[in-house]
Amino acid sequence: MADHATTIANYVEFLGKEDKVDDLVALFSDEATVEDPVGTDLKVGPDALREFYGTLPGAGVVGTLIGPVHVKDDQAAFLFQIEAMGTTMTPIDLMTFDAEGKITSMRAFW
Amino acid sequence: MADHATTIANYVEFLGKEDKVDDLVALFSDEATVEDPVGTDLKVGPDALREFYGTLPGAGVVGTLIGPVHVKDDQAAFLFQIEAMGTTMTPIDLMTFDAEGKITSMRAFW
Repeated sequence: MADHATTIANYVEFLGKEDKVDDLVALFSDEATVEDPVGTDLKVGPDALREFYGTLPGAGVVGTLIGPVHVKDDQAAFLFQIEAMGTTMTPIDLMTFDAEGKITSMRAFW
Repeated sequence: MADHATTIANYVEFLGKEDKVDDLVALFSDEATVEDPVGTDLKVGPDALREFYGTLPGAGVVGTLIGPVHVKDDQAAFLFQIEAMGTTMTPIDLMTFDAEGKITSMRAFW
């Protein structure tokens, strides 16, 4: 399995790439939950994630890992940059991982 | 009550200041938990927090908020910098807050 830092780097790189949506969803476990932004309803499972991440290429999203990336056992927090429609944002994401290295949850602070 | 961003700014500023340990602990609720680093045992309540934060001045800790600070309702995530003993680190902290604006939990990713 990939280490979590590699999974995070792939996650950010795949964001917004039309031909990487399936690869991005494959980073997650089958029961994974996404809370993005924090405070909104959970998106659960591959279909919901594919629908969510599938909207990003149309919005012209480009993700860049600017760090730091902090991994502690099966949890991680990291800072990255999103450029979309002329705006630059710097969200902080939290992730948890299962024993196979799949992302089991993601929570995004904007 | 202070807004959460102000509480976070005070928290980082107070870190490592000998005469600000009590002010720092007063930012937390009486039942607050601190998990620092993530994965270690929780420190719970004012006495445990005073002991924990009371060690920082002796270590020469200086905290600087470098951002971003993301607040969403009663939760926040932020990036800051710690200098101590010639080393610079950039932890990401997560906090939750109660209705009075007191910090109810802090989790630190290093």
